[in-house]
This record gives sequence, structure tokens and C-alpha cells, in this order.
Amino acid sequence: MSEYVTLNEIRAAADKLREVVVRTPLLPFQGDELGNEVYFKPECLQKTGSFKIRGAYNKISSLSAEQRQRGVITYSSGNHAQGVAYAAHLLGCPAIVVMPAKTPQVKIEGTRSWGAEVVFVGDGSEERRVKAEALATEHGYAIVPPFDDPYIITGQGTIGLEVCEDLAEFAAIVVPVGGGGLISGIATAVKSLRPDVRVIGVEPEGAADAYESRKAGHIVEWAKVDTIADGLRTQRIGEWNWGQIQKYVDDIVTVSEAEIRAAMCLLARRAHLVAEPSGSVATAALMSGKAGLGGQRVVVVISGGNVDPAVSCAGELCLLRG
Amino acid sequence: MSEYVTLNEIRAAADKLREVVVRTPLLPFQGDELGNEVYFKPECLQKTGSFKIRGAYNKISSLSAEQRQRGVITYSSGNHAQGVAYAAHLLGCPAIVVMPAKTPQVKIEGTRSWGAEVVFVGDGSEERRVKAEALATEHGYAIVPPFDDPYIITGQGTIGLEVCEDLAEFAAIVVPVGGGGLISGIATAVKSLRPDVRVIGVEPEGAADAYESRKAGHIVEWAKVDTIADGLRTQRIGEWNWGQIQKYVDDIVTVSEAEIRAAMCLLARRAHLVAEPSGSVATAALMSGKAGLGGQRVVVVISGGNVDPAVSCAGELCLLRG
Repeated sequence: MSEYVTLNEIRAAADKLREVVVRTPLLPFQGDELGNEVYFKPECLQKTGSFKIRGAYNKISSLSAEQRQRGVITYSSGNHAQGVAYAAHLLGCPAIVVMPAKTPQVKIEGTRSWGAEVVFVGDGSEERRVKAEALATEHGYAIVPPFDDPYIITGQGTIGLEVCEDLAEFAAIVVPVGGGGLISGIATAVKSLRPDVRVIGVEPEGAADAYESRKAGHIVEWAKVDTIADGLRTQRIGEWNWGQIQKYVDDIVTVSEAEIRAAMCLLARRAHLVAEPSGSVATAALMSGKAGLGGQRVVVVISGGNVDPAVSCAGELCLLRG
Repeated sequence: MSEYVTLNEIRAAADKLREVVVRTPLLPFQGDELGNEVYFKPECLQKTGSFKIRGAYNKISSLSAEQRQRGVITYSSGNHAQGVAYAAHLLGCPAIVVMPAKTPQVKIEGTRSWGAEVVFVGDGSEERRVKAEALATEHGYAIVPPFDDPYIITGQGTIGLEVCEDLAEFAAIVVPVGGGGLISGIATAVKSLRPDVRVIGVEPEGAADAYESRKAGHIVEWAKVDTIADGLRTQRIGEWNWGQIQKYVDDIVTVSEAEIRAAMCLLARRAHLVAEPSGSVATAALMSGKAGLGGQRVVVVISGGNVDPAVSCAGELCLLRG
């Protein structure tokens, strides 16, 4: 890999992923609530329920046979853990996932169901990373980071390739931003193939470190994040991701918690898709008008559908109203 | 058309529909709740939220330019009405829909949003049909029946073609049964291409007229049907449909209301798809073991996602648990 991730590397990832991932469709939205001609890219329908399998599989399959035999380790309680566990399962490779002690049972079981071993530590993300690195050193495991890695980025970037293959013309693509793995890959693919397409990132107001980083011109870390969008609770974006974002992303905007809930609701009722809060932020940016797009053809990425059962419901997200 | 619908006619329909419908994906299910290796064909992601656009467009586009100019009429309050309204909109053809007086506002608006004119009569389905036929005679409208028509059947049959193109081998396909339009088309396509694949229909226990017809060896009509699956509340299957079903369908099974609700829930939580009750019956047949399949590779058709807001919720269908 060069200093920057390139389109050719994303194409190589797509070749590796062809028989592994679901080729998610582009779904035209027929409502008028989003003020644009919208196509959804629904990665909530992807294997393991989110896009994370793309980067995880691409990373693990890039390791040597010897590395794979020793095993991989990661530090995530969420979708990345399941993506790593499933990819390792497919590649016949032992996987260890370091999770916080308070992880919901459903996520622990989801990860274990693919044969991964779960190790628990305290609740700090830093603590988890330190533990994973210590275990990696001790046992020779390869680390599969959640976003700050060129193979992770190129794997997620295959979404951008698929969109460009499936849609001849579009004005913009709107993408959730957590650590920046998804948007950095997609932006690289889309801008390389369609330089005129605007790439817009979306963060929750309660975890808007990337938005602030853009304004500051350097990576800004948040000491504390607070949002229903559990997949976007990263305190800072990655170094590799920052490089690609500065090169290719046009804008980052933020949405409120209420806007995220309203978008989840709209997706369920009108698009028949169950999106998790993190997966709904790009839809929320259009619905609220915050994406700054009007009347154009826009692709909206729904990153995942694994709704945390611990997220409380005020009734508005009920599938069937009483 | 010959006395029976054939594969070639379904192929012709597929050519007409190629640029019109969403090519819905085949989604591998990763849970173990269904006791088989399951692929979903999610027509809840189709335009207008159900498979009905396929038959409606195929039928209306088969009319002469003169017929289309005079307009089309149908008698349905549900997904077929929206399919006809949208297809007529695409083909620049006036559409009239005869609906019961008590139709939920959301369905009236959905139909009107495509420019169709809505005419209200009483609540009996027979009354609606008589009214539609009278208006057709008076104004020269062409009738677009909901299921008992060879062009409707071949349009719906394109789902079977797509499944066979997308999946090299499978042991069975499980399909909801209302008037029989969907299953007669799919069975024709699948059995013509893959004679060894079992085709299994599913009805709610409260509207099991097709199940009883099979046992009796002739079409049985139910005076009264009662089920949450509003799309399957037909009292008898059609003549054209009966012919295709007798020729190609292996079995019809029934599911309870509780099994339908459990399937809707599973689809939302584990497959991230919002399916309406009618769309969930095939999943229910696997989940309950009633499809009589074990450990095989099975395709499950989810026919639609337009959940009627009037359907009451006992809490178990809430997207986010409190």
C-alpha cells in the first residue's frame, strides 16, 4: 500500500469479496419525505447485519497463512466484532474479541455464534485496545483494527464501487461517520470514478469529532461522546481515514437524536428496512434538510441494522401502531 | 395465451419488466430459527412495497394504445391497487380504483399519490367487483383483475425466473397464497426450469380456502375469512390460478395468527426486513416446522411490506424494546 489508499486497491478488495458478501441492491425510495430522488444502499441487509464484514474479510484474507493460523484479535463490542468473527470463521482462522464487561448478551452471543472467543475487560475503549495489543504480543495474534487500516478502508470502499456500477448518474452520496472507515473507503472509490459527485459525511451531534476536525484542519478528539447511535461513538477518527477524508470528502454535517429516531421510523414504515440508529444518520441528514441537497439524485448509505435491544423505545418505533 | 400459462410467456414479461421493477436480491438468512438454509426473496423492497407492480405493469402494457387511452379499472383496497396505480402512472394511462368505504386513509393516499381516481362503494368484495364491471362497461375501461388473469400470473412469475437465475441449487420455494396469482406464476417458472424443486404454498388458518380446495380436488369458496394477513383475505382462488396450481404446486400448508406475528418479528429483528402479515406467512411456515422441510436449502418469498397501521400491536412487534 502507498501512503494513500487508491481505487485499484479497492478493486482488488472487490475481487476478494465477490463470493463472500451480499451484493446489496440500490433501492429507489418512492416517498417525498427526503426532498430528493433517493436511492438507498442498504447494508443492513448485509451478512452479519452491517458493512463491517467487507473490511474484516479483506483484512484477514490479506494475512499470511501463518498469521491466520495463529489467529486474529480485535477490540469492539459492536458490528465490527461480528464482522471479524464471521470473516475469521469463513477463513478458518481463530478469532479473539475483547469486549467491555457490560456488553449486551445478544452481541456476545452473536460473536460467539461464529466460534470467536470473547475476552472481557472494563468499559474504556482504551483499556480494550491495550488488552488486545498485550494479547496480540503474547500469542502472536494479528490485530484487525475497526477502521484505521488500509485493508479495512479498501474493503468498505467496495460499497462505493458497487454504487457506481449500479447507478449511471448521481449528484451526491451521503454516508455515516464513526471512526471514518466507511466514508474514507466510499469517498475514495466514488471520487476516483465520478469526481463531480459530492461526498457528504454525517455524524450525531453528540459525537461530532469528525465535524470539528474538519473545521480545525486536524484530528480533534472528544473526551466524551453521547448518542443513541452506538456504532458512531468513536472519540476520534483514524489517521489513515483522516488522510482519505481530507482528500475526498466534501462536507460533514451533524444530526440530532430526534432526527435519527425519525429517520429510523421513516425507513421502517416507508422503505421496509430496519436500520440501527447509526445506520439511519444519513437518512436523517436528508430528512432534516441538513445535507444541503435539494431536488437531486442522491445515494444514501444505510450502514447497518443491528438495533441494540437495550435502546429504549418511546413507542414511536413500533412496527404496528395500536 | 394458451389454456395454460407457460415459461415463455413469463420470459416475455421479464423483458417488459426489466427497466421497471427492482431486481430484488436473494438474501441469505444467518439465523438458525428456520431450521433450513434459507434465502429470502424480499418483495417488501419492491416498488410500491409489494410484488403487485409486476403483474399490474405486465397486464397494462399488454393493452392496446386505444385501451390504455380510455383507462384501466380495478377493485382492490390493498397492494394491487397501488401496483395498478403506479403501473398506469408509468404508462401514462388513467386509472380508477374501486375501494371499500372503510379503506384506511394511508391506502387511499398511497393510491391517489400516483394519480389514480378512487371510487368508494360498500364493504363487500363482490359489490366492488360489480361496480368496477359496470364502470368498465359504461366508460370502456379495461379491467385489471388482482389475480385471475394470465398476464397477472406471468408478471408475478418473473420472481421465479429471478430466483432460478440467482441461485444454482435449491430444494424448495415457499410462497404466500391469497388469490393464487403469486404462487401460480412462481410455480410455473420454477417447475419449468427446475422440475425437482418443491413448490409449497402457505395460507393463514383463517383463510385456508386454497388448502381445502386442494383436498377437495376443486375450488372451494369460503363465505367468511378472518386473519391479520389482509392481503390473503380472498375467499376463493382464481380459475387460471387453480389450473397452474394443480399442475405445478406440491403442497399447501397453513399457519396460525400467532405464527404470523412471530415471523414478522423475526424478520424485523434478525433479517432487518419489515414484512406485512401476508408477507410473513412463508417465513411462519418454516419457523413453525409446518412447511415440512428439514435442513434443506429453501427460498422463502416475502410478498410485501405495507403494514396496515390499523393492525394493532401487542408490543412484541416494536423495533426497539424498552
